[in-house]
Amino acid sequence: MSDEFYMDLAIKEAWKWQILTYPNPAVGCVITDKFGKILSIQAHKKAGFAHAELNAILTALLNFSEFKTKFEMKFENRVFLASEIYDFILNNHNYLLENATAYVTLEPCSHIGKTPPCANLLKELKFKRVVISIKDSSDIAGGGAEILQKAGVEVKFGVLKDKGDELIEPFLAWQNGNFSFLKLGSSINGILKGGLITNKASRKKVHEIREVLDLLVIGGNTVRVDRPRIDTRLASGKNPPDVLIYSKERSFDTKIPLFSVKNREVMITSDINQALKRRLVMFEGGDGMIKNLPNFVTHLLIFFSPNLGVLDNFKVNLDLKLLNLGTIDGNFYGWFKRSDTNCNLF
Amino acid sequence: MSDEFYMDLAIKEAWKWQILTYPNPAVGCVITDKFGKILSIQAHKKAGFAHAELNAILTALLNFSEFKTKFEMKFENRVFLASEIYDFILNNHNYLLENATAYVTLEPCSHIGKTPPCANLLKELKFKRVVISIKDSSDIAGGGAEILQKAGVEVKFGVLKDKGDELIEPFLAWQNGNFSFLKLGSSINGILKGGLITNKASRKKVHEIREVLDLLVIGGNTVRVDRPRIDTRLASGKNPPDVLIYSKERSFDTKIPLFSVKNREVMITSDINQALKRRLVMFEGGDGMIKNLPNFVTHLLIFFSPNLGVLDNFKVNLDLKLLNLGTIDGNFYGWFKRSDTNCNLF
Ligand SMILES: [Zn+2]
Ligand SMILES: [Zn+2]
Repeated sequence: MSDEFYMDLAIKEAWKWQILTYPNPAVGCVITDKFGKILSIQAHKKAGFAHAELNAILTALLNFSEFKTKFEMKFENRVFLASEIYDFILNNHNYLLENATAYVTLEPCSHIGKTPPCANLLKELKFKRVVISIKDSSDIAGGGAEILQKAGVEVKFGVLKDKGDELIEPFLAWQNGNFSFLKLGSSINGILKGGLITNKASRKKVHEIREVLDLLVIGGNTVRVDRPRIDTRLASGKNPPDVLIYSKERSFDTKIPLFSVKNREVMITSDINQALKRRLVMFEGGDGMIKNLPNFVTHLLIFFSPNLGVLDNFKVNLDLKLLNLGTIDGNFYGWFKRSDTNCNLF
Repeated sequence: MSDEFYMDLAIKEAWKWQILTYPNPAVGCVITDKFGKILSIQAHKKAGFAHAELNAILTALLNFSEFKTKFEMKFENRVFLASEIYDFILNNHNYLLENATAYVTLEPCSHIGKTPPCANLLKELKFKRVVISIKDSSDIAGGGAEILQKAGVEVKFGVLKDKGDELIEPFLAWQNGNFSFLKLGSSINGILKGGLITNKASRKKVHEIREVLDLLVIGGNTVRVDRPRIDTRLASGKNPPDVLIYSKERSFDTKIPLFSVKNREVMITSDINQALKRRLVMFEGGDGMIKNLPNFVTHLLIFFSPNLGVLDNFKVNLDLKLLNLGTIDGNFYGWFKRSDTNCNLF
């Protein structure tokens, strides 16, 4: 199969963790052995935890029983840091991945952050090729390709570059000050109402996303009608997002559950540009929110239930570009980008 | 990666050709070499043409330049029959696929039809393993696994059996007398109206499907309002489907284009069970058709455009099960099965 085939697997894997890696970018990594067999398909999943390359290298090595036995003896039944894994791999890889190929959606990092540099790990394990979708242009993390090339590793850039650019666009936007997206839960015939439209797996994913947000924006009307809690009980339950209620009318029944969630700031304002003061912002809501969607909300994440109903659909004239589709336990979701607004930073 | 990973690739590839293989089943095949590297991901595409295994074996062998050169010398620039390819492979494979593994969604055939038996080919090329999702229970084609096992090939059954069953369900239904499905083209907020909702690639695929149908059913109201042609000009343009207009009122303006398409029979009837006399039937239409969908229409194929509009949605109370999702040039489509009707034949 072509380099594009493996890169596509890496990109799709990374999209599964889009947003959840905040403030880090979503990155995917596929590793094939010296014969071309796929050993792992992995992604970066959460800031502070292993980078995509480290996850992929660990998973790849666990295919080998000699490594697996040593790994389990050391780490079974206890929590470990990414840097511990990194060191363990350096000491125990035994060149099992010599001449392997890594497909990475973003140039491997070269700096020591919460985890040591991935470029160094790929070099030490004697990878033969590192295929990269897009260059890391940041001063801090960039330069990984140079480290690899100097060590004699073959580096190829630009494989599925357009898809790589789409994947990292949210990261570049929040680095630039703000990434805002609208989350919807809809039936496949456009019905938002009716409470629990989507399944539990979809709602759990929304709660996981809420946990990493800087701010959640919701319309005043939705707050009054739905009386939501907007918590994260289906995820860890900690880190509920701050909430901006978008409303001209500033008086609300404070018995509405969202006001009594701990560790939360609630703002009520008719100035939607206040949301731009936060880096990662999710808009939730219904018809009213969609019709008045600010221009800076560039992306939509829509969860679809395959159950059809007879209520009215949400209505808005908006052309979208499909970026990614995924299934989630019988429901599915799509990441879309507005075509009417230029949020392309490249 | 697990057997399930490769089988999933084979199943997804096969769904791309669902219906188009009529009267044959949709079948996918993935081949990995003796080291576990993927050499091909293929499917059966059209009745009378190569089976999935033959397509996959040919594609796999074309990875080897010694085979490719010989193949191009013989077949370049001319049309060839599947049986010619079969014989050419038998004479020229040179054991390049010795110890390879084939992942097939359906047990390889054992009978000589329009193409010679796939089980025999896998045996002669000395495949090591053949992994199969579901058994072929037909008297004619079944028995492939036995041929392989007798020759010492390792055979594994039942990998992703549920997904394999879903894939072949349309085939079993039309073999049993009738498979009927509803095709819709919708915006992702449920708008069917407005003519060209979906993109050209989606409409081309619909025309390709129309070419293999026994019958297309459309509502009388849609015929009067849309005055459609219902032809196959975006595909070969030949083989337009016969049309059943579902209508109590039997008088229509015969200037409506669908009546003047050549090689077409048009029936007008209020007895929808007439459709059951044909084996493969696609329903097209709008809100009216969906609301009065006969029970024997068990599946839906919905093409989605990511462009939102402000018209009303189609409305029906119908719970669906998602079977497969695919993208098609910026649009996407889903195969769904009704949950309210038991079309499971297993
Ligand atoms: Zn890194
Ligand atoms: Zn066959």
